[in-house]
Amino acid sequence: MPRTVILGAAGFLGSHLCDRFIARGHEVIGVDNLVTGRPENLAHLEDEPRFTFLRHNVCERIEIDGPVDYVLNFASPASPIDYLKIPIPTLKVGALGTLNACGLALAKGARLLQASTSEVYGDPLEHPQKETYLGNVDPIGPRGCYDEGKRFGEALVMSYHRAHGLDTRICRIFNTSGPRMRLDDGRVVPTFVRQALSGEPLTVFGDGTQTRSFCYVDDLIDGIEALLMHPSQVEPVNLGNPDEHTILELAEIIQRLVGTQLPIEHRPLPEGDPKVRRPDITRAREVLGWAPKVPLEEGLERTIAWARTQLGTA
Amino acid sequence: MPRTVILGAAGFLGSHLCDRFIARGHEVIGVDNLVTGRPENLAHLEDEPRFTFLRHNVCERIEIDGPVDYVLNFASPASPIDYLKIPIPTLKVGALGTLNACGLALAKGARLLQASTSEVYGDPLEHPQKETYLGNVDPIGPRGCYDEGKRFGEALVMSYHRAHGLDTRICRIFNTSGPRMRLDDGRVVPTFVRQALSGEPLTVFGDGTQTRSFCYVDDLIDGIEALLMHPSQVEPVNLGNPDEHTILELAEIIQRLVGTQLPIEHRPLPEGDPKVRRPDITRAREVLGWAPKVPLEEGLERTIAWARTQLGTA
Repeated sequence: MPRTVILGAAGFLGSHLCDRFIARGHEVIGVDNLVTGRPENLAHLEDEPRFTFLRHNVCERIEIDGPVDYVLNFASPASPIDYLKIPIPTLKVGALGTLNACGLALAKGARLLQASTSEVYGDPLEHPQKETYLGNVDPIGPRGCYDEGKRFGEALVMSYHRAHGLDTRICRIFNTSGPRMRLDDGRVVPTFVRQALSGEPLTVFGDGTQTRSFCYVDDLIDGIEALLMHPSQVEPVNLGNPDEHTILELAEIIQRLVGTQLPIEHRPLPEGDPKVRRPDITRAREVLGWAPKVPLEEGLERTIAWARTQLGTA
Repeated sequence: MPRTVILGAAGFLGSHLCDRFIARGHEVIGVDNLVTGRPENLAHLEDEPRFTFLRHNVCERIEIDGPVDYVLNFASPASPIDYLKIPIPTLKVGALGTLNACGLALAKGARLLQASTSEVYGDPLEHPQKETYLGNVDPIGPRGCYDEGKRFGEALVMSYHRAHGLDTRICRIFNTSGPRMRLDDGRVVPTFVRQALSGEPLTVFGDGTQTRSFCYVDDLIDGIEALLMHPSQVEPVNLGNPDEHTILELAEIIQRLVGTQLPIEHRPLPEGDPKVRRPDITRAREVLGWAPKVPLEEGLERTIAWARTQLGTA
């Protein structure tokens, strides 16, 4: 039975990864300090004999008894509303958390999968973004705490691979949504869904013509699993949905699915907010045979159904 | 009497900074773990009552008794030949060293000056490089250990400034040379000078048409002092000499100054080596009233004279 350690296990993606590898028959050790992760995301695993939860800050050395086959490093605040509040802890987890993840994987002879992000491309000047694009990130801007922490994480993982032969994988995750996103995490899908379900105006930053591409969480988890199980793909792989929409289109679709028509409130665009964002997933298609399958509206419907249960409007 | 802590004190720039602030009447505490720094660089300060040396790895918490007014963070391998050998310690000092430098400065209410680098611009697509250029760095390339460590350092320093009001300065240092560079550190000026003085062929990577701009160390130290003493310049400032030359021109000038004519040996260009590099120093001129004064040939003459004493060919 493979033993898999998931750092950031109580987060949106981390908790879905716990479910996936439990379903695959692994023993899963979930680690989280619950700063942005939520125990509710793991509550359903309480009686699962193959799941253990360890409350721990991964900026401190990670001690796990016994063998470990896989380490997945998903520990980090990931929403701007979170990391702009705690920039120093965000940088620390990017550096120290990744260092401890590498140290654990090396000590155990385990394979490490590092969660990186489309934010390594910054406000991209190449569109769509291929893995070879070196990015347009402002190191001294307010979002630098997340973006540079993640770039540092990639450099560190590659250095462990080169210097110690650590078996590593890096995925660059683009916008993803689905059940278990915090409805107050400030990201556009949960925000619009919450606002539409609560009958509040929808908040659009800037004129709403900036674009994003939204991947449904189940598709993303498929991509992560495919990368983790790939025998040799060390270079980073983009994972996301290339189906690109403007923020205004997204607002319209969500309102239609909820069955409501609310005013749009425009707010100033935050500094460093990318104007376009869309993955080139050629590498994932070719190397992993992976592509997203869930259409935008279907993913949003599932997210809305889940959000209704959270808001008590089901 | 101001008390100044210089991290990386036994390095090329660190040791010149110790001299400068001793000359200005400061008490100087020099910290170095002597991984790439050399005790010889500080030997002349042995009997200086206002100088203390602390052998310490800045990746560990830095404890200094008494008040501190200035912290200068110059601790890092800085030559590719060094950091490519020790990529993980290079990343660690970029993150943990800077974290401990910020922690020390915050605890003491001191001003922090962070040594950053032109390497944050990577292989630049904008030429010359202004401070607003966001760079072209490959996070997963072999040089990523240094470049991303330094970008991370800038993001961390800015986060301490924003979150805790830490009084910070960041200089982005371009190629600099002068006495106390290690003649075996692999960088082009000491390498050519050593080869020319020893009668060996001069090693040129690639075709030698790539360009660099060389600042003499005394000019650079002037710029660092001006930035450190500036009352409010938080945004990064380029420090370097905009006088740009190809590597082949540099080889010719050094041979003329040494009075020799040796063959050129071409070697393959290393991965990630920037093709051009030249600072736009408008900001330093306007904000600090600083510009380099020492012409290339004069700086090289002084460097050659020093190298002769090292090689015993004086």
